[in-house]
Amino acid sequence: MRVYLAGPDVFMPDAVARAAALKGICARHGIVGVSPLDALPDPPSDWRDLPEARRIALANEAHIRGADALIANLTPFRGPSADAGTVFEVGFMRALGRPVFGWSNDAADFLTRTRAHVGEGLRQDDQGEWRDHEDMLLEAFGMHDNLMIDGAILASGCGLFVADVPASARWTELGAFERCVAAVARLQG
Amino acid sequence: MRVYLAGPDVFMPDAVARAAALKGICARHGIVGVSPLDALPDPPSDWRDLPEARRIALANEAHIRGADALIANLTPFRGPSADAGTVFEVGFMRALGRPVFGWSNDAADFLTRTRAHVGEGLRQDDQGEWRDHEDMLLEAFGMHDNLMIDGAILASGCGLFVADVPASARWTELGAFERCVAAVARLQG
Repeated sequence: MRVYLAGPDVFMPDAVARAAALKGICARHGIVGVSPLDALPDPPSDWRDLPEARRIALANEAHIRGADALIANLTPFRGPSADAGTVFEVGFMRALGRPVFGWSNDAADFLTRTRAHVGEGLRQDDQGEWRDHEDMLLEAFGMHDNLMIDGAILASGCGLFVADVPASARWTELGAFERCVAAVARLQG
Repeated sequence: MRVYLAGPDVFMPDAVARAAALKGICARHGIVGVSPLDALPDPPSDWRDLPEARRIALANEAHIRGADALIANLTPFRGPSADAGTVFEVGFMRALGRPVFGWSNDAADFLTRTRAHVGEGLRQDDQGEWRDHEDMLLEAFGMHDNLMIDGAILASGCGLFVADVPASARWTELGAFERCVAAVARLQG
């Protein structure tokens, strides 16, 4: 079983070692982890003239199409939500109808995180809904992130594994990831 | 032609009026705009017992599957990137292989916005790459947002329409949206 490992892990200073660590955990559970950093075996020749960013995007799409499931690192990244590239990939795999799993090293719900992010200017309107300084609504469904993300994971019958770890360990602690990988392994029966 | 209108517009205080305004512009160009706020004609009966957030997520997925193209409001939302729900939906439609268009009322590139967001702790490493206070890399490809988003729009042969408007007008100005709709209309030939 091949599982695409989506996440902002590609932005870590030791991104190659990180990918190897994640793949090692997958291997222990009998799964092949596919990293966004993996070279695509046979990239189409007409990609050659494209800028690097476009080749990376197309390669990641191909990696996802070639995977049986996706595991997303949904630890919040530069804002209350997960990394944008990761969220794109969750949506992509969901449209393919294959299992989408998530994990996060931030246990707070989306409203709590968004309130902290908004900070000054936060207020409650006449209906008791939270709004920011631009009067934009804060989602308050008790989910971990935007409802499209949680909704996709739940609808695909998969799990979201959350750990409450200190901020200083949120890019190193892998307990929630390993629990997630173990759940993926159970899909294989 | 039916076009799904993804965006954080659903969080505006006047979200229903906003959806009507966007649909009005679509209609002027001979296009049917589909809003995430639209009721789904025939929701499956087994959705009845699901929590509201899950029903919204499933309805949006069905709206996207029923659309011929997608227009995403990529104006940055609570961070350097677009709204997470919108980004999910861009990935979803991209996987379906249909045209994805984007527009934004922030003309700055992704690196510029991310640098401003990171603020304190921003530094350049030995290779000249920008890193944040957690040593996480800043994308620097000159794109508007994460490369998966720009990559999907470019790969689907569609356009990203950007306007440089004052911050106070970024949730009201619709010039870039209308240029985007006009480009979608040209797909109809």
